[in-house]
Amino acid sequence: MYGAGDVRVENVRDARLVEPTDALVRVTRACICGSDLWPYNQMEHDDAGRPMGHEFIGVVEEAGASVRTVKAGDLVVAPFAYSDGTCDFCHEGLQTSCIHGGFWGRDGVDGAQGEAVRVPLADGTLVVLPVGEDDALMPSLLTLSDVMGTGHHAALAARVSQGTTAAVVGDGAVGLCGVIAAKRLGAEQIILLGRHPDRVALGRAFGATDVVSERGDAAVERVRELTGGFGAHSVLECVGHTASMATALGIARPGGAVGRVGVPQHEQIPTTFATFFNNVAIAGGPAPARAYIEELLPDVLEGAIEPGRVFDRTIGLEDVPDGYRAMNDRESIKVMIALG
Amino acid sequence: MYGAGDVRVENVRDARLVEPTDALVRVTRACICGSDLWPYNQMEHDDAGRPMGHEFIGVVEEAGASVRTVKAGDLVVAPFAYSDGTCDFCHEGLQTSCIHGGFWGRDGVDGAQGEAVRVPLADGTLVVLPVGEDDALMPSLLTLSDVMGTGHHAALAARVSQGTTAAVVGDGAVGLCGVIAAKRLGAEQIILLGRHPDRVALGRAFGATDVVSERGDAAVERVRELTGGFGAHSVLECVGHTASMATALGIARPGGAVGRVGVPQHEQIPTTFATFFNNVAIAGGPAPARAYIEELLPDVLEGAIEPGRVFDRTIGLEDVPDGYRAMNDRESIKVMIALG
Repeated sequence: MYGAGDVRVENVRDARLVEPTDALVRVTRACICGSDLWPYNQMEHDDAGRPMGHEFIGVVEEAGASVRTVKAGDLVVAPFAYSDGTCDFCHEGLQTSCIHGGFWGRDGVDGAQGEAVRVPLADGTLVVLPVGEDDALMPSLLTLSDVMGTGHHAALAARVSQGTTAAVVGDGAVGLCGVIAAKRLGAEQIILLGRHPDRVALGRAFGATDVVSERGDAAVERVRELTGGFGAHSVLECVGHTASMATALGIARPGGAVGRVGVPQHEQIPTTFATFFNNVAIAGGPAPARAYIEELLPDVLEGAIEPGRVFDRTIGLEDVPDGYRAMNDRESIKVMIALG
Repeated sequence: MYGAGDVRVENVRDARLVEPTDALVRVTRACICGSDLWPYNQMEHDDAGRPMGHEFIGVVEEAGASVRTVKAGDLVVAPFAYSDGTCDFCHEGLQTSCIHGGFWGRDGVDGAQGEAVRVPLADGTLVVLPVGEDDALMPSLLTLSDVMGTGHHAALAARVSQGTTAAVVGDGAVGLCGVIAAKRLGAEQIILLGRHPDRVALGRAFGATDVVSERGDAAVERVRELTGGFGAHSVLECVGHTASMATALGIARPGGAVGRVGVPQHEQIPTTFATFFNNVAIAGGPAPARAYIEELLPDVLEGAIEPGRVFDRTIGLEDVPDGYRAMNDRESIKVMIALG
């Protein structure tokens, strides 16, 4: 990406091993993320360009000399952050804060919207998938890179548990995965705040019991009506705007929690005295997707959850610019890139 | 209180039973709270005046016809909010959000800095104390009305647990009780951020292992030095200023939590992108002191904790105006009012 609206498919230097802890992965599936749309709308022109993409599945072509857990030929999924798997934060399951970790497409590391990726810290980062590279589960497995783990993180941060009422702010791919996660963790009532007919329909299929299409104060009012006047125990904030955060805080029940995973486009949390007075907690951040792959993978393999349904378009690498356009125009919920 | 700096001791209409669920309590001990200093500094003049005080121990003089759990002659302690004990929120242990509850000194309910108080919802509100009204434990028992429960709430909201590092922002009575609470919950390292020699000395006596007297960025830097560069797992925000909240967020470890109990004097939480990126949670609010009285009372009775040491001055009712002045001038940490 060279700037807002300026996505180009170009030949770059081939990915290759640099460190003995690296693996070289040929990408078979990648995708475009809602968070990629922030720079797509706002990025200032940069002559150097920025490699894009942080979600992928691929085949290991070559493993560095000290890599132990993956080998050439393995099909692997990568989370949206790489991590060493050995530091204190990795041991605590917070791989996004790994001391030696980092993010795709920065600091000389390849982006995932391409043919191949050098994976730093391959042992800590990659998870081998026990299926073939064209398995029908590819879309759902690919969501483990980011959106399904992120929805799960929102649900955990919002403390969803058996029998609770959850509200999900945002009907994008993360919000829809948040619905899946809330249902999986036992929420009894799941209120999806969204207004796109195709998305809320998928949300209902995933387990949303109510849909609120109002916004702002009207949305707060409507959620209160649906929850006996008190609001939701757990609110999953899956957008990141000031307005969506204000709505999330407004619909939380006293003693409830807001789990926020939408990359905040605001510096300050737009809280009010009521947030304090009602003992509403605010938690969340970037999901340690690496930690959640192992937790969620069995459910995906069994078909117990089908987050891959958020993909409603599949394109080749050459069509990535149009994929950004389609997601930005809300023509598509989430676009998968199939290579190979 | 008639306005900033204007505290008067006056004769008012005698407290009396109104509802059958009320109890009439003769106050034997009350105190002045750090939160009383907000109006003491900022309140606009009000001809009607505001009854003050929300922390007290007293003897039941008369119980309403439907009161079951207390009777005339019982020595009781009251939390800073009254509550019915039967609603959903009370059952969840969040009595400050009781559907029928409220706060002392508002809506025609008496303040506690006086000779007697009508206690609404006496069954849900009062806890009988198994000691005499002049027992040496009175100061510590009185802290169960507010500051000890509030420090405990901060520690719980900040998720203090065995072996963790806790940091306490603020060396007022609540912060000092936060040190007690953090130690009681098993924190291994307890860093007190404060600069008043008498207060930090008491903090060390309560279990603080380190004291940081710097402020702002220098305080953040110092706490990082003391914690291997990463910050504290648990941060107890016991002030409520924008600056103290910013410091609290700045010294939290990735994946850590800030428990805030200082009544916020700001509308927005002064968070930065780092708070999100580091998955730092923000929780807390007014403490459900009623829930914590039963939990903390045994430790007070056994002398395992001595929160009453935060009282460094005892006055009579007639000296309450000077008590406000002394606390506001930082001559006194916390002032007890003894009636007799």
